[in-house]
Amino acid sequence: MKKIEHIGIAVKDIDESEALFEALFDVAPYKRELVESQNVLTSFFRVGNNKIELLQSTTKDGVIKKFIDKKGPGFHHIAFAVTDIRAEMARLQKQGFQLLNENPVDGADNKIVCFLHPKSSNGMLVELVQEKA
Amino acid sequence: MKKIEHIGIAVKDIDESEALFEALFDVAPYKRELVESQNVLTSFFRVGNNKIELLQSTTKDGVIKKFIDKKGPGFHHIAFAVTDIRAEMARLQKQGFQLLNENPVDGADNKIVCFLHPKSSNGMLVELVQEKA
Repeated sequence: MKKIEHIGIAVKDIDESEALFEALFDVAPYKRELVESQNVLTSFFRVGNNKIELLQSTTKDGVIKKFIDKKGPGFHHIAFAVTDIRAEMARLQKQGFQLLNENPVDGADNKIVCFLHPKSSNGMLVELVQEKA
Repeated sequence: MKKIEHIGIAVKDIDESEALFEALFDVAPYKRELVESQNVLTSFFRVGNNKIELLQSTTKDGVIKKFIDKKGPGFHHIAFAVTDIRAEMARLQKQGFQLLNENPVDGADNKIVCFLHPKSSNGMLVELVQEKA
């Protein structure tokens, strides 16, 4: 793991939450991105050398909608930057972590990603991200 | 907000979770610290230029025990480094954020800290931290 790439935060209403986090950080978001494959609208802030990613569901049965129904808005996942995602996936699987996808998939922000099951990582959804070549 | 100073993670058993996060990050924790005023035993990892703080309750009715009883282990809070905590507290209060303490209090790792109520910050417990002079 090189660094925390971003923290993902589930929000109900991206307009309201953008305004709230802009007030919190005293900085404006730098981009929005629709990730159609995951039915989420995202908004990104920079804080230091990390990013904060707000996630709003675009459908009534999307993963973020389900998450909020169960747990409320708030921390959704933590993403770590890696240089070789396949090597890291193999290493973590050997260590007993459960991968949610066998192969890396496309994520937001020009990345390939893999998620670890919260049950194998202290209740936290963990994402590995590698910049696309 | 200068940067994410650390991510706080509630754990049931600090020995087990230290081993788990050591396997996840492929790096050992660099210190443990007992914060008696908050009834927590903490363990710190470095990942990039951020820290991850594991928190285990030392009492049966501590805040971390109560948190885990309600929500399970996982993300507990996000801490941001600030240069002038009192100025930042005043700024955020004006913006409508609810402070959980009126004055900064001692935190782990040689810091003075202030928490924001999750109700005013999208369901997330937010901590402001300033290095002690």
